[in-house]
Parts: sequence; C-alpha cells; structure tokens
Amino acid sequence: MNWEQIESRLDQLMAENRHGLLRGALMMLNPVDIAGYMKKLNREKLLMLFRILPKDVSADVFSYMDTDQRQELVESIADAEISALIDEMFVDDAVDFLEELPANAVKRVLQNTDPKTRAIINQFLKYPENSAGSLMTIEYCEVSQDMNVGDALKSIKETGVDKETVYTLYMLDAQRRLIGTIPLHKALVVPEETALIKLMDPGIISVNTLDDQEIVADTVRKYHLLSIPVLDGEGRLVGIITSDDIMDVIEEENTEDFEKMSGLAPAEQPYFKTKLTTLAINRLPWLMILMFTSIISGAIISRFESVLAVNILLSASIPMLMDTGGNCGQQASTLMVRGLALGEVQFKDLFRVLWTEFRVGGLIGIVLSSVTFLRLMFLNSAPVVTSAVISVSLFATVVIAKSIGCVLPLLAQRVKLDPALAASPLITTIVDACSLFIFFTIASHYIAQIAA
Amino acid sequence: MNWEQIESRLDQLMAENRHGLLRGALMMLNPVDIAGYMKKLNREKLLMLFRILPKDVSADVFSYMDTDQRQELVESIADAEISALIDEMFVDDAVDFLEELPANAVKRVLQNTDPKTRAIINQFLKYPENSAGSLMTIEYCEVSQDMNVGDALKSIKETGVDKETVYTLYMLDAQRRLIGTIPLHKALVVPEETALIKLMDPGIISVNTLDDQEIVADTVRKYHLLSIPVLDGEGRLVGIITSDDIMDVIEEENTEDFEKMSGLAPAEQPYFKTKLTTLAINRLPWLMILMFTSIISGAIISRFESVLAVNILLSASIPMLMDTGGNCGQQASTLMVRGLALGEVQFKDLFRVLWTEFRVGGLIGIVLSSVTFLRLMFLNSAPVVTSAVISVSLFATVVIAKSIGCVLPLLAQRVKLDPALAASPLITTIVDACSLFIFFTIASHYIAQIAA
Repeated sequence: MNWEQIESRLDQLMAENRHGLLRGALMMLNPVDIAGYMKKLNREKLLMLFRILPKDVSADVFSYMDTDQRQELVESIADAEISALIDEMFVDDAVDFLEELPANAVKRVLQNTDPKTRAIINQFLKYPENSAGSLMTIEYCEVSQDMNVGDALKSIKETGVDKETVYTLYMLDAQRRLIGTIPLHKALVVPEETALIKLMDPGIISVNTLDDQEIVADTVRKYHLLSIPVLDGEGRLVGIITSDDIMDVIEEENTEDFEKMSGLAPAEQPYFKTKLTTLAINRLPWLMILMFTSIISGAIISRFESVLAVNILLSASIPMLMDTGGNCGQQASTLMVRGLALGEVQFKDLFRVLWTEFRVGGLIGIVLSSVTFLRLMFLNSAPVVTSAVISVSLFATVVIAKSIGCVLPLLAQRVKLDPALAASPLITTIVDACSLFIFFTIASHYIAQIAA
Repeated sequence: MNWEQIESRLDQLMAENRHGLLRGALMMLNPVDIAGYMKKLNREKLLMLFRILPKDVSADVFSYMDTDQRQELVESIADAEISALIDEMFVDDAVDFLEELPANAVKRVLQNTDPKTRAIINQFLKYPENSAGSLMTIEYCEVSQDMNVGDALKSIKETGVDKETVYTLYMLDAQRRLIGTIPLHKALVVPEETALIKLMDPGIISVNTLDDQEIVADTVRKYHLLSIPVLDGEGRLVGIITSDDIMDVIEEENTEDFEKMSGLAPAEQPYFKTKLTTLAINRLPWLMILMFTSIISGAIISRFESVLAVNILLSASIPMLMDTGGNCGQQASTLMVRGLALGEVQFKDLFRVLWTEFRVGGLIGIVLSSVTFLRLMFLNSAPVVTSAVISVSLFATVVIAKSIGCVLPLLAQRVKLDPALAASPLITTIVDACSLFIFFTIASHYIAQIAA
C-alpha cells in the first residue's frame, strides 16, 4: 500500500465511524505518519481521531503535530486531559510544546500535571531559547562507580521503559558529576560480573546547559555521537540531547543561514503557516536598507552623466558590470560562510583566504574580461579604447568583488556577528558602488579617445 | 586541560620520543581529536604516531583523517599493513577510503585483505556514488522469527563487538527479507523468554540501495531514526545506515544547495584543499552565462537611450531598480528552495504560492514605492511625473520579481532539476531584464511630461 491508499483507507474508516478498525489501522502506522494524516482533518475529526489513539501513542503523535493543530487540540480538550498527555510525553517534547502556549495556558496545564513532572518542566522552561538546556531530555540512564554490568542491566530493566535513550550509560560520582560514559553495546558483550568502571570511557564530550544549539550540533556531528550529555556549571549531569533532535537543529540553523544570506529575517513558522503581513515584514527591513544603499550607485551614475552621454555602449555595460560583480562577491562569501560553518576556515586564515581569492579573482577576471573585449570588438564593432575601458573595469570589478566577498564574513565572525549576514545582498550593493566608481573613473580618463 | 595544553603535551612527548607515555596519552583522547592533532604532523611523525596507536584505535583514527593525510600514510606503509587496517575498519569507512584511492592502489590493497572482507568491499564499490548503498554498513544485528530475547542477547554477545550499531535488531524471514525491527531497549526490559516477534514493530521504514542520499537523510530526519535499514530490489536486508553518517550527508546536501544558489559548481574538497584553478573553474561557467544574459539588460538600456538622455534621475534609478528586483526575487526563491527541501511546499502548491507571493509582493511594493516617491519628491525635488514613473516601475518590479522568484524553483523541481539551481543568480538576471523593460516602457510613455 502506498501513502494515498493508506490515506483513503483511513478516510473510509473515519467516514463509516468504525472506531475499532480505525484504531487498529492507526496502530500499524508510524506516529510521524499519523501526525501527517491529521493535517488534513478538521477540528472535530481531529479530536475524534486523537481520542481513539492509545495514550502512549497519542503523546508521541502529539509531539510530531503542527503548532496550530496542537493549539486547536488544546482548546478542545479539558485541562486534565492535556496534563495526562504531558505526563506521557518525553520532557523535551513537553517543554517544546509548552513554550508555544500562551503563559496563562501553561500555568493552567501545569497545575494539573503531577508535581514531579511540573518541577522538572518548570526548571526546563527557564533555559534560554535555543540553548542546550532547552533541547535536552532527562530520560537517560545513570550508573554509579561501584556497579557492575549486571546491576546496570537490572537498573535498565526497572526504569528503562521511559528512557528516551538507554544506549549510553552515564557514570556519576557522589556529587552527580559525570566521570565517564559506557556505550551499552560494550556492556552487552561481557560477563555480568564485569565492573562497569572497567568499560568506562573517561574522555567526556559534553556541552553546557547554556551553550547555543549550534555548538551542540557541531559537537555531535564532529564526534559522530548518538547522544551528548549536558552538564551544569559545576559539571553535574542534568540531561542529554539525542542525535535525532540534533538533525532538526542542523536544518534549522541551515535555514537561518539561507534566510540571512537572502536578506530575510528568520521565520519562526513554515511558509504556509506564516501570515501574509509577517511574510512581508520579514523581508522589508533588508529591502529598505538595500534600496537606500543602492542610491549610492545611482549617485555615482548621475555624477558621471557626461561620460555616459559620450557612448551608449558605456551605459549598456552597467548591468553586466553590476551583475558580474555581485555574482563574484556572492560566490566568495558563500564559500566563506560554509567554510566557517563546517570549521574549514577560521578568522586567523584571513590573509591566506584573501590571497587565494585575489588570485582566483585574477584568473576569473582575465577570462571574463578577455571574452568581453573580444565580444565588444567583433560583435559590437566597438573601438579598441572603449572595449579596453569596459573590460579593464570588469577585471577590476571581479578582483574587488572576490576580495570583499571573502573578507566580510570573516570580519563579521570576528566581531561575533553571523557571517551569513555579511554574505547577504549587502555585498552586491557595496560591490556595485565600487565597480561603477572604477568604471567611470577609468572611462573619464579616456573620455577624449572614446568620444573620438 | 584545554586543547592547546593537550597539544603541547603531545608535542613534548613526541619530541622526547617517549612512545609508551605517548601511547597512554593518546588513549585518553577521542579518535576525532587524535586525527585533528595529526593534521599538523609531517609525514615521518605521522607514520610514527600512527604506528604507536593500538590497532582498533588506529582504524578508527584513520577513518577520521583528511584525504591527503590518508594518501600519505598509504604511500608510507606496506600493503599488508593497509590491508590489516581495512580488516579493522567498519565496512562503510573502508569503502569511503578505497573510493578515494587510485584504481591500481585499490586492487593492490584488496589483494591483501581477507577474502570475505574483499568480497563485501567489492560489492559495495559497485553502488553509485551518493546512493544509500554507498553509505551503508553491514555491521548490524539480524534475528530470526523463532528467536526469543535471550537468544538475541546471546547472539549480540557472540558477534556484537564488531557491530557498528546493535541498538536495533532486524528480523528477517527465511528469504532474508526484512519483516520488522525491534529496538534493543524494548528487549532489555522484558524477561529473556519473551518471543522477539511479540516486540517487533512491523511498520518498516527503509530505503533502497539505489536511493539518493538526500532521500535517506530526509527519511531519517522525518522519522527521528537512529539507523535505517537498506533493502535491495527484492526487499532483502543488505545493510543499514546510522544517523551519525546522515548528519554529514545533511551538511553536504546543504552545502551543495548553498553553492548552487550562488552559481558555484559543487566543490568536492574543503576550501583550502582545493587547487586555485579548480576554485576558478567551479565559478566560471555560471559567471560566463550570467555575464552574457546580462547583456540583454544592456541591450534594453541602449534601445531606450533617448529616454535616459531626458532626465538624469532616470539613469540614476537603474541600480536601485535592478538591486531591489534581484533581492526580492532571491528572497522568494530562497523560501521556496527551503520549503521544498524541508517538505513544507510541493509543486501542487504552485498557484497557492504564486497567489501568496503576488500579495506579499503587492504589500512590499506599496511600502517601497511610497518611500521612493516621497524621497524623489522631497529629497531630490523631482517633478511628480518622474517620481511617479520611477515608483510605479519599482512596484511592478517587486511584484514580478516575487512571482518569478517563487515559480522558478517549483518548476525546476517539476522537471527534476535541482530547485537550488533555479534560485541561482539567474533569477536576478531575468528580473533585471523585466524591470528595465517595464521601467523604460512606462518612462517612454510619459517622456513628454518628464522632459517638460
């Protein structure tokens, strides 16, 4: 059965109100797919389907649902029901959900959850948004230094059902400080009497509760981890973050970079969930700034009006110079933004990068300006001087664009700005002004020959 | 100890040739960090350090090393030594490494590995690059329908040390077809007599050996998986892909999108590892194409030369119109590329997207063109007609740019091109030509009033 068949089968069971069968059918699906199917349901059906699900499945499905569908459900069901749901959910998912709710709703919901969950959630809600603390879960397995493998497996058996991941055991000392980790698979292949401490890996790779999610993602990716422990300021273990949540963080951070590089304010919501005015407001600030900075290019053009009047080929070359410069700058800046994000380039490489881009710009400049020179001479039958002026300007534009393009993101990183911001269309506007200025300066110098 | 201290301690031990201590010190580090430390060593020291490492650690370190350092090592050590290394490595890492080697070196190396490993590696080398088959590993735990939990744990104990991940058990039928999976943590919390099939999740989420790595990454991310089974054409289990490898794929695919959106040919190597000529050649094709397409804009300018001669404000507005149009188009196309990549937008949404962007464009157009009208009237003391012509052109430019920007990536996706390609600077060039054409058409219409 493909997805359309599954959907139409569910639609049918739904229409015929065969709840028993529907429940059975849903049990065959992944919670992600159930949440996907729910997207097209109206409020009433949504509520009905949700209530049909077994409790543990419904908590899972709920954590994969859209923000607005969750809101809808929360408005439709009683506080006690929501609280039961929250008790079933993993703490990190519950916190994610509560962060979306209005403050008074959070209070109301929490009043009904059991006191232990409430205390934990309250503590989690205090961590700054996008910090390791806000991503972590407390469902992990801890062991102490005097335990052996048998003890550990017994402890998993007793408490493990609720654990989001039991695949790494965290060994704590009496002060709850993390002293090492034991990958579960190591414990599974030795006799039960083996002391856990013998299997322990003392090289702890961890993050702090206040670390930004970008640091968490970079660390997990670098060390190929399945989960990473989160420590507080005193080195005590307070939670773990699992790799599946990290993948979402990676995509989120990449989306943010894409948006910044296109002069968009980062969007909180998927495209179709965003209000029209929000879509417009996210885009306006940079457009406004860039519109005003491009007036500089306009001012350069009007200052050199007399030059333009001499030869129409000069005016006609403006878009070519501006576009090529912009593209060259964007290429260099994109390479830097990715290089920085993946740890391949650092600020200390500034001069090495600049020297590389300078030479790459030279190579590209020679090719592009030779082609342009030949085109102007033979296709447009332009005089040698005019062709030379335009192609030399193009060469200078390419070299300058590459240099500005590579330097700005590195400088931005240095002053703790996001390099992606510096790779925004701002580069195009700066390069535009520079290239027009060079072009007109060279052209004015040879104005007599061009006019002749 | 921070990283600098660790490095200088290692340097010291290295300089004093205290191999025993050095080995001990290295054992405290993560293989990723050992590979990181090796980056700054010369060939001789690299070889020495590598030989000091215990065999299983060295295979791990080797798989995290740079391509060129691996090449260096391979040239320095005997074939038998390389083959021993490959026997120790996980199959997917070994295949990755062999793919980098020249064909004759691969042959030489494989001749020395044990026949079983050789057969597996040869089979893996046949899968297309960036396919699920080329990413997968064969280190996984399979179980049969008649086994109970105790049998499974015993089988892990016997064979598990070599498994890259034992955290999901794959249940196969007699034909080696996958019939379901059992998360290990479920097996750990029940009595050993429990039949595995009772714990089995029959909802299989899998990929095919020939699926592109992008599909693999999307599936793993969507369903929050730790690993995904890879099936052949007949539904038989041939390997698994673990989530840590998926993270690298996600970053790789994102980098490719960033590069395409900036008119760069995808680079195979990190920035500083790439030859100058390759850097230039990766950037030239699009620059050349875009340079030639921007000649269209130039042609439009020269066709309307007489219009420009009338009023310098018209010439001075060209950069503003071109830049704003380009930025608006890029914003819309970036949103579409991300929406498509994250599955939030599909081709069937074309008209819905177009209608949204049309209205967003309208809103933004009104704001930008009003501001421009006021600026021209009051700051530049321009006549009403001139100001109106420029701001109406700006409005039209914004609306058209948004529409083209959102449609092109969706169309590209439809005809199986990468949407990121359609979000490249090509959009800017198309929008440039359109906006200049509209601008001049409107301006020529009011030429008499502007001149007056």
